[in-house]
Amino acid sequence: MAAYTATVTVRLKRGVLDPEAETTKRALSRLGFELEELRTADRFEIDLEAESSEAAVRRAEEMAERLLANPTIHDYEAVVEER
Amino acid sequence: MAAYTATVTVRLKRGVLDPEAETTKRALSRLGFELEELRTADRFEIDLEAESSEAAVRRAEEMAERLLANPTIHDYEAVVEER
Repeated sequence: MAAYTATVTVRLKRGVLDPEAETTKRALSRLGFELEELRTADRFEIDLEAESSEAAVRRAEEMAERLLANPTIHDYEAVVEER
Repeated sequence: MAAYTATVTVRLKRGVLDPEAETTKRALSRLGFELEELRTADRFEIDLEAESSEAAVRRAEEMAERLLANPTIHDYEAVVEER
């Protein structure tokens, strides 16, 4: 077994309304910042032990499928690094 | 001017309680997943135009300082990519 950190990034699919992003974008503009678009994403950094990096990625993807992401409105990606 | 995407990642400083992470970690364990630690972070992807990548990073850091992060409890990092 080796120690890995899996990072799962969960973001709304294109076209799905992102009220948090809209609110943040307006607030930044009111503060005088120039920006075109803003998107938000949630990131989960998970320390785990696994047989291989492939096993670690598979487990992180399963965590996303079962809990961290809602497949109807979210896309996700999982990457792992050895610790 | 060139088009950049600045990605600002905001996470709680080490030692600051992260109830969302604790709750998520417990839920994953109840689903039978093995994991040691879990940390959450917020990610903002900002499309903007700037004179240079240095100018784009500076603007993203300013956005973090003034709105996206609370310097008392958060650490943040800003990276930019040309679009």
